[in-house]
Amino acid sequence: MANNLLAGKKGIIFGALNEDSIAWKIAEKAHEQGAQFVLTNAPVAMRMGEINNLAAKTGSEVVPADATSMDDLNNLFEKAESILGGKLNFILHSIGMSVNVRKGKEYTDLNYDWLTKGWDVSAVSFHRVMQVAWQREAMNDWGSILALTYIAAQRTFPDYNDMADNKAFLESIARSFGYQWGVRNKVRVNTISQSPTPTTAGSGVKGFGGFINYAEKMSPLGNATADDCADYAISLFSDLTRKVTMQNLFHDGGFSSTGVSEAVIERFEED
Amino acid sequence: MANNLLAGKKGIIFGALNEDSIAWKIAEKAHEQGAQFVLTNAPVAMRMGEINNLAAKTGSEVVPADATSMDDLNNLFEKAESILGGKLNFILHSIGMSVNVRKGKEYTDLNYDWLTKGWDVSAVSFHRVMQVAWQREAMNDWGSILALTYIAAQRTFPDYNDMADNKAFLESIARSFGYQWGVRNKVRVNTISQSPTPTTAGSGVKGFGGFINYAEKMSPLGNATADDCADYAISLFSDLTRKVTMQNLFHDGGFSSTGVSEAVIERFEED
Amino acid sequence: MANNLLAGKKGIIFGALNEDSIAWKIAEKAHEQGAQFVLTNAPVAMRMGEINNLAAKTGSEVVPADATSMDDLNNLFEKAESILGGKLNFILHSIGMSVNVRKGKEYTDLNYDWLTKGWDVSAVSFHRVMQVAWQREAMNDWGSILALTYIAAQRTFPDYNDMADNKAFLESIARSFGYQWGVRNKVRVNTISQSPTPTTAGSGVKGFGGFINYAEKMSPLGNATADDCADYAISLFSDLTRKVTMQNLFHDGGFSSTGVSEAVIERFEED
Amino acid sequence: MANNLLAGKKGIIFGALNEDSIAWKIAEKAHEQGAQFVLTNAPVAMRMGEINNLAAKTGSEVVPADATSMDDLNNLFEKAESILGGKLNFILHSIGMSVNVRKGKEYTDLNYDWLTKGWDVSAVSFHRVMQVAWQREAMNDWGSILALTYIAAQRTFPDYNDMADNKAFLESIARSFGYQWGVRNKVRVNTISQSPTPTTAGSGVKGFGGFINYAEKMSPLGNATADDCADYAISLFSDLTRKVTMQNLFHDGGFSSTGVSEAVIERFEED
Repeated sequence: MANNLLAGKKGIIFGALNEDSIAWKIAEKAHEQGAQFVLTNAPVAMRMGEINNLAAKTGSEVVPADATSMDDLNNLFEKAESILGGKLNFILHSIGMSVNVRKGKEYTDLNYDWLTKGWDVSAVSFHRVMQVAWQREAMNDWGSILALTYIAAQRTFPDYNDMADNKAFLESIARSFGYQWGVRNKVRVNTISQSPTPTTAGSGVKGFGGFINYAEKMSPLGNATADDCADYAISLFSDLTRKVTMQNLFHDGGFSSTGVSEAVIERFEED
Repeated sequence: MANNLLAGKKGIIFGALNEDSIAWKIAEKAHEQGAQFVLTNAPVAMRMGEINNLAAKTGSEVVPADATSMDDLNNLFEKAESILGGKLNFILHSIGMSVNVRKGKEYTDLNYDWLTKGWDVSAVSFHRVMQVAWQREAMNDWGSILALTYIAAQRTFPDYNDMADNKAFLESIARSFGYQWGVRNKVRVNTISQSPTPTTAGSGVKGFGGFINYAEKMSPLGNATADDCADYAISLFSDLTRKVTMQNLFHDGGFSSTGVSEAVIERFEED
Repeated sequence: MANNLLAGKKGIIFGALNEDSIAWKIAEKAHEQGAQFVLTNAPVAMRMGEINNLAAKTGSEVVPADATSMDDLNNLFEKAESILGGKLNFILHSIGMSVNVRKGKEYTDLNYDWLTKGWDVSAVSFHRVMQVAWQREAMNDWGSILALTYIAAQRTFPDYNDMADNKAFLESIARSFGYQWGVRNKVRVNTISQSPTPTTAGSGVKGFGGFINYAEKMSPLGNATADDCADYAISLFSDLTRKVTMQNLFHDGGFSSTGVSEAVIERFEED
Repeated sequence: MANNLLAGKKGIIFGALNEDSIAWKIAEKAHEQGAQFVLTNAPVAMRMGEINNLAAKTGSEVVPADATSMDDLNNLFEKAESILGGKLNFILHSIGMSVNVRKGKEYTDLNYDWLTKGWDVSAVSFHRVMQVAWQREAMNDWGSILALTYIAAQRTFPDYNDMADNKAFLESIARSFGYQWGVRNKVRVNTISQSPTPTTAGSGVKGFGGFINYAEKMSPLGNATADDCADYAISLFSDLTRKVTMQNLFHDGGFSSTGVSEAVIERFEED
């Protein structure tokens, strides 16, 4: 599907690690739709990834940046504007990581240094990116800024641990900064609250297999895939959605509005 | 527990059918807390119930009223003010019924006359009650009006059928009329969104057994019982909650804020 | 903007009255994007409208139908499938009317016959349309059904009167029926919660001028127009949003997520 | 009003600074209702406050603690259990502070060290308190833990700055930890989302005067005061609310459910 929806639009895409990444799929589809963009990821993440293949495939350049470093971000935006030849129309933030999850710390026994690290990487980085863009006046009017989140910000999924709180902070940043961007530049800021997705990041969560299976059975349309998410992101970067802002948009096959499905309830009837 | 929380308060309680009814428990506890009230129910429902026992136990009188009849409601309020010797401090609306559910019609094959009947009984009746009270100026300032609802108004539980839509309408009435009451009389209007409860009404829903078991396992505190609900209602009629209005208050042991519990997810791990 | 987003898609559009109608704009843009559709409206509304001009402009046919009549709706779907040569990919429901609003009845003095009429036209009609489509198996898999709503379903705007409760019912239908459609046909059902829009219908609300001005000042991006809404609807009919379902989507320039704007608060600072 | 609602209950109250503090009012009313508790505040805050007067008045002891220090918190809980002679039934968290707000930094120009400091004090402290209580097994079954928050966590109030994001994090902690407490100890965790209140902390926000006036006009019951909030907190510590958990409870005179009031809209009608 190539509808030229992003013709002439320029952007920065954070967080493409490998082919399973949602950001990777978004980069591919944004390219198909005529966008030009710079790819970026943390130097440490990029060593693990195949981001150069993606760059080649999409005619884009890679500028490494640690999204918790203001210097890196300033360098990134400077290079991006230079490479792309102008201001930006869209930004994708697809970054998240919890040290407590990685190290198997329970939510009732958090290490607070690790909490702070995960919060900075997963949530504050979104503010940092926007603050750099704001101060550099790097966005064109009617641009679109997007981050990825998860429904654990509204309802508890025990294994999601401190990432739930980080996502709540991230979604709040989208509203708080979205107000400012709207008033000054008519730029919109939203979050997509995506089905659990078997990316490298998602798969690190304990009990992910059982969980993704449960979500599949609970969602009338089934789980939204990374590919589906990329389609949705394209619509949110396109001019079709210019008045949607400060929203957390559930993209989950109906999971968030389903109290219980017949497929789930039948497992409880025998009791 | 008798803390004199409702000393001197007068009210009307709709919907006490038998000992399993939430309204029944609320009447008992309101009496313990010093309230005086009139009990009412539809003439047809009262023939089935043991409401006179409740009246005797709580020193109250029974005034039958069909809550879809403006004449009945006017008569009820007139008698209540006369019996109680003054204006009201609280009203409980605990009325709900779907003909489509009773007759086993699927949501995709509704009978619209039955839909209209259920909507009138379950939702419009709440407006009717308040409109009569409003026009008669029957409420004291800082009074409290309460209705019972269910989370199907926000998320789909397939077997709950058209009652979901009726409850959404009911909750909207609470907000719409709550605004008016607040401005004119400082009266508050709220709904309690209660756990599935094995009352005569609740038990009529298809697959109720499996469902209540599921909700129990999904709720960190377990399902809220009819007794628990009565305690909560007392707090909402008392002066402790005078600035809470136009709210839908989940009283569900945490169900509404739980994405999935460990007790539920373990049934999906083997797949 | 013509991106061929709806190429090959067939649909029915309810509610195009005149050039100010949101449904009118959606019809124009759906045509630009390659869709084929049937236009419909109530016979009484069509006498007032210029719907034949729209039909000519978009190469579509008009089939009158009262959306509260199952016979009319069955006839409409039969004709639509015949005219379009197959099943449908999308339906737009843009119908709403309150007799109480029209006749200037206050919310605290509703006429219940008029309430029932407005509820049937504004909310139940959405169920009727879907029930007819469901029973006729008229939708292709992965189709999209959309209705228009307003934030009064969540928060009280006193002049919106009983339409608030009708919209709450409508949004609940979207979830309830969306579950069913998702499970059986992978069809999605959503509502757009649109900024106040100066259509013929909207303008009938008392104090509309002051209200639209307030909403404009409260929304960081300003009010979404009918044209904007049409763009958004296109995205929701397109294949970019196939996993979004059972959602109420705010399309309001940020109004719903703004507690107060600087433009509004400054009017309260002198006090 | 003394109804013996908290007879025999023991607790810790964080954040009573002076007579304007919500925590101060809660301490007074908890004492009236028969509770015993330990008062605590940050050493630096206590030097400014008159907390010893409150202690004398309520027969309680003061144990200073910096809520961002695990050592201080462990010491506090150890002393509290010793002073009170057993485990706790309730905890109040009323702590919040933003360095960025204090120093007049705009949201688009945050100092990230200050953000981190404010986040730790305002939000993480709530987790720290609960983690210490959890690991010490300091709560009796069916206890109640409560924190204070503000609707800026859901909707943007520009002057509230980074406190909005901190409050979103705090509310998420209430859900995340509330799940754990519920499952293990039947303890509930909730937040009260309070009207803007002229406390020492609240008054520090820029433009607070205009804002509180606006909220007053927007709320059908008027703003909830600190006294009102104390009443509500008593209900949430009492046994009347044992099945309410993981909820964010609006206590705001109806502000959160009012789209616009007549008192506000009339200022926009002349335009």
